[in-house]
Amino acid sequence: VTLRDVAEQAGVSLATASRALSDAYGVAPSTRSRVLAVAEQLSYVVSPEASRLAGGRTGRVALVVPHIDRWFFGAVVSGLESVLHPAGLDLLLYQTDDLEDRRGFFDQLPARRKADAVVVVGFPLEQRERERIELMGVHVVSAGGQAEEYPYVCIDDAEAGRQAVEHLLFLGHRRIGMVESVDPDHPGWPEVPGRSAAYRAAVAAAGLELDPDLVVSLPWGGESGAEAMQQLLSLRHPPTAVYAHSDEVALGAVRTIRRAGLRVPEDISVIGIDDHPLAALTDLTTVQQPAHEQGARAARIVLALLGSQQADLHVTLPTRLVVRRSTAPPRSS
Amino acid sequence: VTLRDVAEQAGVSLATASRALSDAYGVAPSTRSRVLAVAEQLSYVVSPEASRLAGGRTGRVALVVPHIDRWFFGAVVSGLESVLHPAGLDLLLYQTDDLEDRRGFFDQLPARRKADAVVVVGFPLEQRERERIELMGVHVVSAGGQAEEYPYVCIDDAEAGRQAVEHLLFLGHRRIGMVESVDPDHPGWPEVPGRSAAYRAAVAAAGLELDPDLVVSLPWGGESGAEAMQQLLSLRHPPTAVYAHSDEVALGAVRTIRRAGLRVPEDISVIGIDDHPLAALTDLTTVQQPAHEQGARAARIVLALLGSQQADLHVTLPTRLVVRRSTAPPRSS
Repeated sequence: VTLRDVAEQAGVSLATASRALSDAYGVAPSTRSRVLAVAEQLSYVVSPEASRLAGGRTGRVALVVPHIDRWFFGAVVSGLESVLHPAGLDLLLYQTDDLEDRRGFFDQLPARRKADAVVVVGFPLEQRERERIELMGVHVVSAGGQAEEYPYVCIDDAEAGRQAVEHLLFLGHRRIGMVESVDPDHPGWPEVPGRSAAYRAAVAAAGLELDPDLVVSLPWGGESGAEAMQQLLSLRHPPTAVYAHSDEVALGAVRTIRRAGLRVPEDISVIGIDDHPLAALTDLTTVQQPAHEQGARAARIVLALLGSQQADLHVTLPTRLVVRRSTAPPRSS
Repeated sequence: VTLRDVAEQAGVSLATASRALSDAYGVAPSTRSRVLAVAEQLSYVVSPEASRLAGGRTGRVALVVPHIDRWFFGAVVSGLESVLHPAGLDLLLYQTDDLEDRRGFFDQLPARRKADAVVVVGFPLEQRERERIELMGVHVVSAGGQAEEYPYVCIDDAEAGRQAVEHLLFLGHRRIGMVESVDPDHPGWPEVPGRSAAYRAAVAAAGLELDPDLVVSLPWGGESGAEAMQQLLSLRHPPTAVYAHSDEVALGAVRTIRRAGLRVPEDISVIGIDDHPLAALTDLTTVQQPAHEQGARAARIVLALLGSQQADLHVTLPTRLVVRRSTAPPRSS
């Protein structure tokens, strides 16, 4: 589908079609609506270059964020802001709480460009969402997670998981539980499989048998961590250490252990991933991921795509073990 | 100063001055710059009504937030988004990390209106900031804190403090410490004085003497809570209970108590304010403030000011005690 197809079907000149799609002035509202409707119907994709050449710069970057009130997302957004705002760009914030909400958001995505780029924070785009976003003719960057189709900034989830589980193995633990966080909204997101595969690989590499009872899968969240720990404590042979996919889940597990009258780490060790600010306050051992920096690096990719500087378009930032007081050798050793 | 003064000094017609200030089309860039410079020089205040009459609706609301990566601010922004986005408004996000950054932001506030309203999240505006913001000709709403000059949504900080301290008194504590969070960036903000005055009033009402050694003042933060607790533990007569201005500060105090080999609440009780999501996971007793709802209610005020619905313009939301496992009667009683 070319711009000529859109212009012909809408009954306007090529120039008018271009101006309507790039939101330039001098096009009657009714004409613009007609052109946009035809473009949508024909799935016409405006190339960002063409759109920019048409003078459609907005000076804005749109951030699509699932949960702005959770630490990880807030920290990534803070990092994005710290680079984009000084560069003279404004940030449009869109929160999409769940998958349905998100689908509604992308379905209603206005064909009129409100931003020069879209940064997707911490979730993968579906095919249909990619098509809608491309219709806007804007750049797309993935922050806080890998997206094959677009430039991205992420961590290596398998490496983060390896660091966590191998720390427990190094301390002498042989019976290690995992609280696996599943996300029903993003079944294809590499984060969870990466963190889970790391557990299985590390346990197998240590010559230990994989006991399926030691893995509890629940939706992400602190209360899930608390519930998962109840399941693990009710086993005939509870684990001596627990690996959780995130610090908030780990803190839920710690609460259950303490409520059972047991001590962390004397009776059971617990490790998370994130280095949430409250991990330091609760003396939780964890694997640190640089959330703010993932946002800042994604912002530099945006600036590169908009032509104002150079940047790596595919960035994987390192994680590192932070040892605090929630892990220790098992009692028996 | 009237619009006529601006027009005369800029050497343009009244209509052109109005169009330039409202960012309407059909004004040459050089003319617009001249009008804006004169308006700024004369401190001309565009009334929101006049500006809207001139057709300058942007469909956007600007949020000015000190720390988007902290729970309280993220939750307020999430509440704002949950109401404004369904109402068809876009959100512009501006993060201002410290006072200097904030002053820079307001000084550079473009006279061109980028938004129809500004929501200030969790801090008071200075006189100069109010003047700059008024020059934009937009509505202003304060969310998560009271601002005398504008519509606001807040909690009663003195009441929240009373609920916390009276809970400790009711349990039988007579020697209660306070970790007071001072904010060097916002000395005039009513939050801290309200929470501190409540402590002094409740202690005095219980017939107890105010011991200045029991009050430690430090900048907000979990590490400050940990440090303050070290000071309190080093007293000849340490407190049997501690009241912190926020949950994150309280969790820092809990860490120090545990590292000292003491137990919470058996040896020392700790209470915070907020009901941060991690308070539930760490079994922290606290006074809950509805952060998300403060944002949602502020958003409804924005919609009312923009004319699409009715709303109370001055809202104080209730707080309530949430009893968990970090408070208990003192050992001696």
